[in-house]
Amino acid sequence: MVESLYLELAIKEAWKTQCQTLPNPAVGAAILDKNGKLLSINAHQEAGKPHAEVLALKNAYFHLTQDSAILSLQESHQIHQYLKQNAKDIFHNSTLYTTLEPCMHEGKTPSCASLIKSLGIKNLVVAAKDPNPKAQGGAEYLANSNIKVTKIWEDSQFNTLAIKAQELLLPFNLLQKKGSFVLFKYACRLDGSIDGGQISSKETQIFMHNLRSKLNNLIISGKTILLDNPTLDSRFCSLENKNPPNITILTKNSNFPQTAPLFAIPNRKVEICHSIPNFSGFVMCEGGNNLLESLLPHIDMLLVFVSPTLSTYHLTHHFQAHFKLLHCQMIGNDIALWLLPQK
Amino acid sequence: MVESLYLELAIKEAWKTQCQTLPNPAVGAAILDKNGKLLSINAHQEAGKPHAEVLALKNAYFHLTQDSAILSLQESHQIHQYLKQNAKDIFHNSTLYTTLEPCMHEGKTPSCASLIKSLGIKNLVVAAKDPNPKAQGGAEYLANSNIKVTKIWEDSQFNTLAIKAQELLLPFNLLQKKGSFVLFKYACRLDGSIDGGQISSKETQIFMHNLRSKLNNLIISGKTILLDNPTLDSRFCSLENKNPPNITILTKNSNFPQTAPLFAIPNRKVEICHSIPNFSGFVMCEGGNNLLESLLPHIDMLLVFVSPTLSTYHLTHHFQAHFKLLHCQMIGNDIALWLLPQK
Repeated sequence: MVESLYLELAIKEAWKTQCQTLPNPAVGAAILDKNGKLLSINAHQEAGKPHAEVLALKNAYFHLTQDSAILSLQESHQIHQYLKQNAKDIFHNSTLYTTLEPCMHEGKTPSCASLIKSLGIKNLVVAAKDPNPKAQGGAEYLANSNIKVTKIWEDSQFNTLAIKAQELLLPFNLLQKKGSFVLFKYACRLDGSIDGGQISSKETQIFMHNLRSKLNNLIISGKTILLDNPTLDSRFCSLENKNPPNITILTKNSNFPQTAPLFAIPNRKVEICHSIPNFSGFVMCEGGNNLLESLLPHIDMLLVFVSPTLSTYHLTHHFQAHFKLLHCQMIGNDIALWLLPQK
Repeated sequence: MVESLYLELAIKEAWKTQCQTLPNPAVGAAILDKNGKLLSINAHQEAGKPHAEVLALKNAYFHLTQDSAILSLQESHQIHQYLKQNAKDIFHNSTLYTTLEPCMHEGKTPSCASLIKSLGIKNLVVAAKDPNPKAQGGAEYLANSNIKVTKIWEDSQFNTLAIKAQELLLPFNLLQKKGSFVLFKYACRLDGSIDGGQISSKETQIFMHNLRSKLNNLIISGKTILLDNPTLDSRFCSLENKNPPNITILTKNSNFPQTAPLFAIPNRKVEICHSIPNFSGFVMCEGGNNLLESLLPHIDMLLVFVSPTLSTYHLTHHFQAHFKLLHCQMIGNDIALWLLPQK
C-alpha cells in the first residue's frame, strides 16, 4: 500500500489543477529523501509555468535547506538554474515519483529530465509514458543515466494505478489526438434542483473561472442566457491571465436578443449558432439537463458540482436545508457524502 | 503541509469505517520510522477488534521484519503480546500519528498507551483528546513516560486539522452525550432522481449493510415498504456479525399490512409507529425527500450516496446516461465529480 501511496497522492494533487494546465497535461510529483521520508508533493499549475517535478524539487530544497532565496523564484528556468547551482548534493539517493514521464525537450521551460539527472536522484517512479512524441523519452534517457527507473505501466501489479494515471491524462490526450476536449459543466443541489440562483460556493466559482480563462470556447444555450442574464467572464480567476472566454450561444431563435451583459465584455468573440457547432480546442459547455442530453454524444467528460443543499418546492411551501460537507469518499462507482445539518 | 499530511491521511482512513466502529469512535493511525519514512496507515474496523494504533503497529512490524507470523493474529491481546515480545527495538525513535488520544484503560482490548510506551516510540502526535473519561489520559501518561507528545488541539496553527479530528468523532460523541446518534441515509442519481429500482453500486450496498449490522434501530416509512417491498437485512455485510437491524415503520395507517419480506426475517423486532419515535442508540433512517424533510430536526448527520447516472422521464422518452466516476474532490463546501461518459 505505502509504495503506491505517493503516486496516488501525486495523482490526487494533479486533479486539483485538471484542465487548468491545458494545453499541458495535469501532472503531479512527490519527492522522498534517501531514507524514504516524504519531502514534497506538487502539481503543475499552468502551461508555461514550472512543471510538477520542478515545483516538488523547489519545495523539497527549501524544506531541507531553509534557504528562502528559492521561494521568490517563479520562472522555471530560474528554478532549474538555482537548483543546478545550489542543490548539488542534497538530492543524492532520493526518489522522485511522477505521474507522467519527465519531459525531455526544451519548450517554454527547460527539460525536467536533464535537471533530474544533474541533481543525482537515485530512483524515479513513473506512472505514465508521455504520449507527446516531442516530450517523450525522458524515462529512457534517465534509465541510461544510472538512475533506477520504475515504469508503473509495465508492472501488472500496478494496473489500477496505471489506469488512474491514464485517466488523469485524458483531457490532454484527447486534445492532442482529436484537436478538441469537450467538458460539460453541471451544477446542482443534493435533490437535483438547479433553479433559484447561485448554487455553488465561492471556491467553486474561482475554480470554474480559472478553467474559463483557459477555454477556446464556452458553449451555452440561449435559454440559459435569457433566464440568467449572465456575464460569463473570468472575473474570479486566480491566475494571472484573466481572459474572458469566447462564447457560442446555441439557440433556434434566428433573432436572438444581444442584451445580456456577456455581449458587453471586451476581448471576446460571441457567436450565435443554430445547430451543434464544430468543437475545436478546449471547449466547455455550461448548462442543465436539456443541454447535457442534446450534447452528450459530443462530450468527453462531465464535471458536476454538487452543493450540499436541499431546495424543494411543494404546493404549500418551499423546503430548504443546508449542510456542511464533512467528508467525501468514492465507494465503488458511487460517491458518499457525509453531511452535517446546519441548524 | 507534509507535517499535517499523516494526520489527514489517518483521518481519511478512519472515515472509511465511520459508524461501523460504533459504539467505539472512528480512529486512524500512521507510523513513521526514525528517519521519517511512512510505514503504515490503518483505521479501527469494529468494536472489540484491535484499535487503529495496534493495526498500524502490526503492519509496520511486518513491513520492517517480514515476519509473517504476526499476520495471522487477529485479536488485540495476541497482537499486543506478540509486539511486546518481538518488536522491542524496531520502533525505537519512531513517530506515531493518531487521530484520537491512545486509550489508557483495559476494556475489550488491552491499553494502547501501555503498548506504545513499551515499544520505545519517541514521538506521538495526537489530533483529538479522548472525550471518554474512562479511556482518556493516554497522552498525559505517555508525556510522563519520556515520549514527546504533540497535542494538535493545543496548537492554533493546526486549527483546521483539530476541527477535522473532532468532526470524525461526532457520531461517537453524540452517542456518548445524548444516548443516540441519528444518521439519515439518502441515495440518488446525479439528476436527483430516486425512482426506478436499485441506485447504488454493490460496494455501497456492502458498506450500508455493514452499518445496518451495527444499528439499534432502522427507521423507514410505510410508503417505502409498500413501494419497494424490501428485506432490510444485512445479507451483504462483510463483518462477522450479520445481525439484521430492528425496524421501526413510520406510517399513519393504523392497519399496516405485514406482508413485506422484512417481516419474515428472524432475530429482529419490527415496530409500527404512528408518530416520530424516541431515538435511542445508533439509529439510521433510510428514505427519500419526504422522510428527510419530516425527520430533519431529529437528524445528527446525513449520508448521501450519489450514483453517477442520469435518469429523466420526459413526456416522449426516458433519457438515461451512465458515467464512470474518475475522481472526486471537495472544493469549498461543494463536491466536484469528474465523470467519464460510458458510451
